[in-house]
Amino acid sequence: MRRIIVQKFGGTSVADTEKIKNVAKTVIKEKNNGNNVVVVVSAMGHTTDYLVKMARDLSKSPSSREMDMLLSTGEGVSIALLAMAIQAQGYEAVSFNAMQVGIFTENIHSKARIIKIQTEKLKQNLNEGKIVVVAGFQGVTEDGEITTLGRGGSDTSAVALAAALNAERCDIYTDVEGVYTTDPRVVPKASKLKEISYEEMLELAQAGAGVLHPRSVEIAKLNHVPLRVRSSFKTDDTGTLILGVEKMEIDRPVTGVAADLSQARIVVCDVPDVPGQAAKLFSKLAQENISVDMIIQSYARKVSNTNDIAFTIDSADLEKAKETLNQLKDNIHCGEIQINSDIAKVSIVGAGMIDRPGIASMMFETLANLGINIKMISTSEIKISCLVDKSDADKAVKALHEEFKLASDIIADVKGDLPNV
Amino acid sequence: MRRIIVQKFGGTSVADTEKIKNVAKTVIKEKNNGNNVVVVVSAMGHTTDYLVKMARDLSKSPSSREMDMLLSTGEGVSIALLAMAIQAQGYEAVSFNAMQVGIFTENIHSKARIIKIQTEKLKQNLNEGKIVVVAGFQGVTEDGEITTLGRGGSDTSAVALAAALNAERCDIYTDVEGVYTTDPRVVPKASKLKEISYEEMLELAQAGAGVLHPRSVEIAKLNHVPLRVRSSFKTDDTGTLILGVEKMEIDRPVTGVAADLSQARIVVCDVPDVPGQAAKLFSKLAQENISVDMIIQSYARKVSNTNDIAFTIDSADLEKAKETLNQLKDNIHCGEIQINSDIAKVSIVGAGMIDRPGIASMMFETLANLGINIKMISTSEIKISCLVDKSDADKAVKALHEEFKLASDIIADVKGDLPNV
Repeated sequence: MRRIIVQKFGGTSVADTEKIKNVAKTVIKEKNNGNNVVVVVSAMGHTTDYLVKMARDLSKSPSSREMDMLLSTGEGVSIALLAMAIQAQGYEAVSFNAMQVGIFTENIHSKARIIKIQTEKLKQNLNEGKIVVVAGFQGVTEDGEITTLGRGGSDTSAVALAAALNAERCDIYTDVEGVYTTDPRVVPKASKLKEISYEEMLELAQAGAGVLHPRSVEIAKLNHVPLRVRSSFKTDDTGTLILGVEKMEIDRPVTGVAADLSQARIVVCDVPDVPGQAAKLFSKLAQENISVDMIIQSYARKVSNTNDIAFTIDSADLEKAKETLNQLKDNIHCGEIQINSDIAKVSIVGAGMIDRPGIASMMFETLANLGINIKMISTSEIKISCLVDKSDADKAVKALHEEFKLASDIIADVKGDLPNV
Repeated sequence: MRRIIVQKFGGTSVADTEKIKNVAKTVIKEKNNGNNVVVVVSAMGHTTDYLVKMARDLSKSPSSREMDMLLSTGEGVSIALLAMAIQAQGYEAVSFNAMQVGIFTENIHSKARIIKIQTEKLKQNLNEGKIVVVAGFQGVTEDGEITTLGRGGSDTSAVALAAALNAERCDIYTDVEGVYTTDPRVVPKASKLKEISYEEMLELAQAGAGVLHPRSVEIAKLNHVPLRVRSSFKTDDTGTLILGVEKMEIDRPVTGVAADLSQARIVVCDVPDVPGQAAKLFSKLAQENISVDMIIQSYARKVSNTNDIAFTIDSADLEKAKETLNQLKDNIHCGEIQINSDIAKVSIVGAGMIDRPGIASMMFETLANLGINIKMISTSEIKISCLVDKSDADKAVKALHEEFKLASDIIADVKGDLPNV
């Protein structure tokens, strides 16, 4: 059997019929390379916004089941139109929604996880020489209920399909040209990476880089699917390949710098230093589906025998978190609750830092030299994050990008040239 | 189990969110009458036109499979929105597309016929007290291919669901208030009928009255489903009930007058009078999917031993018919082919004419008195149609409407009062 390439095009890439024609050309080019092609598409441009607006006109809190029914129609439109556009170029194409394919998910609306994908129908159509167009973002439960996969859902669909079909590669076409060392809007000299490891990509995504949703990277990593992020519009460029670290030659300690401006810090002061207080706090937040990122608990003060517990959450969850904490206040007998949204999490990510001690201190020094105060620190094997004032974020990113020699005019020359600090 | 009422709302009735809110009220009113309610909806207002336009942008002749994939998304939107609107009023509602219900059709795209409908899921949800909203116009094949039912498809879905669910009644909500004795735009005094038989409705629909597609009436008749045509906007009115003639007291010879302006007449002149010529002609037209309505073959001329064969078709098929006939010309050795689109078929319909001879002659006399030339005549048990010049159509309809005493200001008084001519 021929190699299978899965291609994914987001909403911007299929925003109107002219753009759909361009996507058809890109798809056909891959087919003409001698590959079997499965294309995953999102809903056209602003379709989802339009549908959500109508739903809000009708109901303050529309049921998530009916929202999934509604939103899933968006990809229904784009898959059929893309199949027509491909056919108009003289190639055979067929579109399927998630229910037709059998993209099974758990029975949770608006953010379901994929459980299994049936591949018979897809393989049969590929074997007949057809280009197969599949609706992204949606799934179906065993009971025939329509679900959606939540943020980054179409990326997840594409990667999961690539895994199920044992595809050669999954190409994520998007409106940027690849993965950059940092946000080019902040640092114009940011360079596009040719390769990055799944782990680095995951950390970058979690650190605020918006190119790919972490879930899709996680699935790619688990299933060893090489992922490529590339431009829908500049198709001659190969973009950035995301693959297993074991396949990479690591020639740099730091691969990227990211800033996440959407975090908020909460400090719960004077929590009595008795066992189970932190558990009470964080299990309650988890119940409310509030993800906590960085956590710091101070040593207990000798005099009062209390702790301060500081943590960060997504600003979008702030109101819900305030409510939850106010309900908890009497239960855990804590003091004041301080909230600060004017913060940013600045991170450096690199698989190469594993074998290179001293990267953290380089980061702290760089920030110190700029007079930037670090409020919290968290680290993983391949990432160091510092919480700073929001107003310092851009300055910090620029300085770190320079410190670790990531600029486009020098990155080509530094291969293996960085000091093993 | 409670009685089931099936309600159907067309595209105009769900054209925007305000109208969807109104539909929700009408649905809830029926639910509050103590009935189980299944609602069938079409795509919102101009959705279908918009989708078709995009398809045409991409392809001159988009594949009918992909067109069905595309168009079926239209009802996907309206069912979810209506379910939300009902929920917002505090009632439980759930929407299903044809694939989820199991509305199985033959494997033909763009005009599939319904084969069977699974009722388990519907009944289960009704028993749980929910209002069930179902996508009209669409179906699914045993292989999971999405199909559409063609013109009048949502009416057909509604009636077929009513039949499968053994519903008490199927209410077709539309932008007119019911079935009229004739088109009120032509005859302002046309009266709304309280009742009409399936057979009369079928003949009227085929004679050009646009309220209901004949297919839905046919299914209602076969399954003894009482059908009601009523206004989406004036919900206090009961509209027109369509039911079996055996349940009606027939108090009038003629129930309605209709004009069909979309016909074209073709005369194939000098066809050699040998067996099989008509068969060749009409089987070829049938192959091309061209429906023939009236047919007249003249007696063979003694001298030339040839016939003239005249027939009418839908004007929309005219170009295709011309092509087909030109290909046939040499094969059947006919003479000139005359085409006339400036014609109209004027019909009177009434189950009451079965026992009342002389109705036909009343019609012919009425037309003759106006100096209207009759070009062709065709009859059924309960219908008489005359082909006239298009410019005479309105005049003919007005005169026949008066002759058979159908005007709104007198119809109430004439019960059983018409002469048994």
